[in-house]
Amino acid sequence: MNEDAKKKLLQMAPHALYVLTSQTPFDQVASTVSWLTQASFEPPLIMTAIRRDTDTYHVVHQSRAFVVNVLGKDQAAVAQKFFKHAELKGEELSGERFERTKVLGFAYFPHLAGYLECRVTDEVDRGDHTVIVAQVVEAELLGAEGPLLLSSTKWQYGG
Amino acid sequence: MNEDAKKKLLQMAPHALYVLTSQTPFDQVASTVSWLTQASFEPPLIMTAIRRDTDTYHVVHQSRAFVVNVLGKDQAAVAQKFFKHAELKGEELSGERFERTKVLGFAYFPHLAGYLECRVTDEVDRGDHTVIVAQVVEAELLGAEGPLLLSSTKWQYGG
Repeated sequence: MNEDAKKKLLQMAPHALYVLTSQTPFDQVASTVSWLTQASFEPPLIMTAIRRDTDTYHVVHQSRAFVVNVLGKDQAAVAQKFFKHAELKGEELSGERFERTKVLGFAYFPHLAGYLECRVTDEVDRGDHTVIVAQVVEAELLGAEGPLLLSSTKWQYGG
Repeated sequence: MNEDAKKKLLQMAPHALYVLTSQTPFDQVASTVSWLTQASFEPPLIMTAIRRDTDTYHVVHQSRAFVVNVLGKDQAAVAQKFFKHAELKGEELSGERFERTKVLGFAYFPHLAGYLECRVTDEVDRGDHTVIVAQVVEAELLGAEGPLLLSSTKWQYGG
């Protein structure tokens, strides 16, 4: 395998950054993710890949639901907060104020670009990330202008 | 469901355009796809969603392998040729000269940005597209500068 070619070609795939939130009765998580795209028009499905050795994956796997919070183009500082374990304190997750979505009742951030509420339909456990296929069941547009493109930040993820 | 919000948020996900090639002993296909991203570092996996009612999906399903040809940023005209059924004529597919990849022996286009050879590991049949998870087994960088971002074209796919 030509590792250099593989890496460079995989890094050509464009990504945005999202904060994925989920919860069980015992735990509440929020993590920044970037490997996400649409997977069907009807029903509306998305696919995302989440690192399997994370709390976020285990909570999504148990709750079978999550919220995709779409970051605004100037919200890299928010993305950065959710690279590590989110801390819940009152009505804030890692210092970001959240409210509850209509259908799932999970956290969303009213100052972002919007959110998609999703129910997991399928999982594929094959690599170091689990592929999650999920149906969009509700959506709301908020005030910020999205998306936050990974290419507009100093970070890279992929290759 | 807020359909307008769902559509606008799904359309914020950035995409590039790729020409996916595959073949069986009886058929050879080439189609432009855009719903594709990485799904694992180790092993290197990608995930893509392909419309199920297409020859391309059926050939990929049978051969369990395909090539992702990464388009260069100025190659929208090539992408457009593979929106419809590709015509094989000598060493050309829809007028684009191709050669054979090292591992699979499938078509690649030497004037594009590069290609990834992939073997299918899993499929999820849930929506109007099938989610295909595949392992990258070989890669080659070619001359054109990629990627071709969907947002740089007049087309849209998603929402």
